[in-house]
Amino acid sequence: MSNKALALRLSNAIEQQQFDEAFIQVKTLRPIDIADVLALIKPALAWQLLERLPNRSTVFSYVNTDIQVALAQEFPRDSMARLVGEMPADERADLYKCLNQDQRDTLLPALAQAKREDIRRLAAYEEGTAGALMTSDYATLGIQMDVTEALAALRLEAPDAETIYHAYVIDEQRKLLGVVSLRTLILAAPEQLIRDIMVSAIVSSNVNEDQEDVAKMVARYDLIALPVIDDGGALVGIVTHDDAMDVASDEATDDFHKSGGVSTMVGRLKDVSIGVLYRKRVFWLVFLVFGNLFSGLGIAHFEDVIAANLVLVFFLPLLVDSGGNAGSQSATLMVRALATGDVVMRDWFSLLSREAMVALLLGGTMAVAISIIGYIRGDEVVSLVLALSMMCVVMIGCVIGMSLPFVLNKMGFDPATASAPLITSVCDASGVVIYLFIASKFLVV
Amino acid sequence: MSNKALALRLSNAIEQQQFDEAFIQVKTLRPIDIADVLALIKPALAWQLLERLPNRSTVFSYVNTDIQVALAQEFPRDSMARLVGEMPADERADLYKCLNQDQRDTLLPALAQAKREDIRRLAAYEEGTAGALMTSDYATLGIQMDVTEALAALRLEAPDAETIYHAYVIDEQRKLLGVVSLRTLILAAPEQLIRDIMVSAIVSSNVNEDQEDVAKMVARYDLIALPVIDDGGALVGIVTHDDAMDVASDEATDDFHKSGGVSTMVGRLKDVSIGVLYRKRVFWLVFLVFGNLFSGLGIAHFEDVIAANLVLVFFLPLLVDSGGNAGSQSATLMVRALATGDVVMRDWFSLLSREAMVALLLGGTMAVAISIIGYIRGDEVVSLVLALSMMCVVMIGCVIGMSLPFVLNKMGFDPATASAPLITSVCDASGVVIYLFIASKFLVV
Repeated sequence: MSNKALALRLSNAIEQQQFDEAFIQVKTLRPIDIADVLALIKPALAWQLLERLPNRSTVFSYVNTDIQVALAQEFPRDSMARLVGEMPADERADLYKCLNQDQRDTLLPALAQAKREDIRRLAAYEEGTAGALMTSDYATLGIQMDVTEALAALRLEAPDAETIYHAYVIDEQRKLLGVVSLRTLILAAPEQLIRDIMVSAIVSSNVNEDQEDVAKMVARYDLIALPVIDDGGALVGIVTHDDAMDVASDEATDDFHKSGGVSTMVGRLKDVSIGVLYRKRVFWLVFLVFGNLFSGLGIAHFEDVIAANLVLVFFLPLLVDSGGNAGSQSATLMVRALATGDVVMRDWFSLLSREAMVALLLGGTMAVAISIIGYIRGDEVVSLVLALSMMCVVMIGCVIGMSLPFVLNKMGFDPATASAPLITSVCDASGVVIYLFIASKFLVV
Repeated sequence: MSNKALALRLSNAIEQQQFDEAFIQVKTLRPIDIADVLALIKPALAWQLLERLPNRSTVFSYVNTDIQVALAQEFPRDSMARLVGEMPADERADLYKCLNQDQRDTLLPALAQAKREDIRRLAAYEEGTAGALMTSDYATLGIQMDVTEALAALRLEAPDAETIYHAYVIDEQRKLLGVVSLRTLILAAPEQLIRDIMVSAIVSSNVNEDQEDVAKMVARYDLIALPVIDDGGALVGIVTHDDAMDVASDEATDDFHKSGGVSTMVGRLKDVSIGVLYRKRVFWLVFLVFGNLFSGLGIAHFEDVIAANLVLVFFLPLLVDSGGNAGSQSATLMVRALATGDVVMRDWFSLLSREAMVALLLGGTMAVAISIIGYIRGDEVVSLVLALSMMCVVMIGCVIGMSLPFVLNKMGFDPATASAPLITSVCDASGVVIYLFIASKFLVV
């Protein structure tokens, strides 16, 4: 059954208050699948089913934040407080950030004090940092415990912790001393001490670290969870592998969009409004119009050469585009390699010399291709002008394409700002000048 | 200390057979960090240190496959067989695929029979499928067991299993019946039965499924591991979260490269040779030269209009590029949304109407911008021609950009083949024709 059909059936069941019927429909679905269906039901109906689900807080956590807010409007205050109290700490803080002041004022007093403070603390971290990504639902152990005590402690913590597969060993100041995996605990003898079996060389992240770097760390070290510490070394949260995977995907999407000349955009493409799409695209389009004026000025400068040799115009798009295409290839390779960490800033020079070699080969191949076409359409001189121009245009395109991401990075921009459209414009302008300059030297004016 | 400096220090220590000194240097490093340093040391030296490390098989698994093969050449046969025997099953099969026949013939007889068969089975799955990605090191339980028996079974399986946090419940035919998390086991009473606490609504993947879809499933359902079953429903392996994250990253890289007109390329950019880079780039560059010939033919067709109104050439790059830029934006948004699953094939029509609205707004804005420039540089008629052309070029660019990924998908190509350079070429050719056609209607020839 499609989600739409299921949503319709559930709506009917809820309207007639047949909740048993509704339960049967969603019983075998995973929480995220239920969340997707609930998003298609009117909030005034959806909350009634949601409230009655045994795994309501998990399902609710998977609902998009704007729909969470809409549902929060419908819920009676006590019900809402219970639901929010059950949510994972990180999802709860994300929702809190999206509520308006009225909603916050209604919700907060209904929560237990510890949860209120937890929300305030988590919501205070800047978006895009480890702090904003982490959850405070982690399991801790004391260094003096033995394995039996540790397992008993984990049993107590399990209902609230996002994972008990890694437990963090802390002292009284919450300073992170080590980590013990549940696998180690299960394999150890009951009387062994945590201090003897814990791993003390731990990978951790500072609370202010960029979420992209956090995700890279989780990926590199194959972690189930990464502990997050504050400037004093105290444990304040963990980032779980699934959240890290979501961040990696979002960051890839963002880079991908930038590479096509679309500014950072939040939300799924299907849900984004026309207004948002317009705003996220218009800047680069208009900016590049002015960028392309340079190409126009180049052409204007060589108007006499063109007037005397109209055949040049025939090859103009082909020639300038080839530079842009080669440049886009180089930029794409560099931007992604910088994003995954395969390449770092200090690699620029060694990569440049290799890129020059590749460009020489590519330019040579292209020069041969175009000189043939040039000979057919024009004569030997045209053919020579085209081959020379192509060689230069491709080489300069490659150098611009591979260098611009580094330059932008150095200037504090995201290297992904070196989008294909931007590279194309820059290469076009330089390509026009190179082509017509070479032509003016060889052809009659 | 940088990796290079550490590699130098280790090389010296190994040459002088001071392995205690070498151990101290790498003791606090994570396996993947040691692997990165070993890659910088001559294989003839590196294998001697590797062989003596307590976590040698983990470190070796993190080494790039080509360096693994180089190291395998150096290892004495028995040492190598021991190391390979200790490796995770999926990494072992990947290495096996890269060995030549001689190396295979030396290695296989030295391995236990179960491992030989495991290698052959895993290596037989086609690259890019769940089968090629999965490992056979998973933990299983019988449905009749109680919790005490299950925990005892997991203690036995733990040293070999990649994860014991999810254990899979199977019958005698290895048919997958359910899954039990270690969290559930720890919280359950010792006498509870597995059949009563297992989850039987399981997310699983077929062995032939595309690895990209496997990674999406792991991400969507926040799984630690995804069970893989054969066509008969028997459990044959699991895909762990860390491998899924690597696949998601590799697939994003591949799409990213394609979007810039670079063909699928394996390995890190830093390690790729000039020859490979040339081959992965030259196809699209040359292909697009011929694509761009259409732009040239368009220009040739309207040569008279151009000759009579040279001002048109000034605006040519600007105008055609704007269509290409708008098209690149649309294509980028679609390609990524198709890759993440935010958009599916049947959304095309509803997205097209929204895209048309966005294109209208973008085209309108651009038309205003260019008509002003056109008025300054030419006259009212030129201004009108430019505004009209811009409107059409941007709208057609958007429609081409958003439709081409769907069309390519329908034709069996990766939607990411709709790269910025390809879209630019297609939009350029149509832009030239539209622009010069409109101009020929309004301007004197």
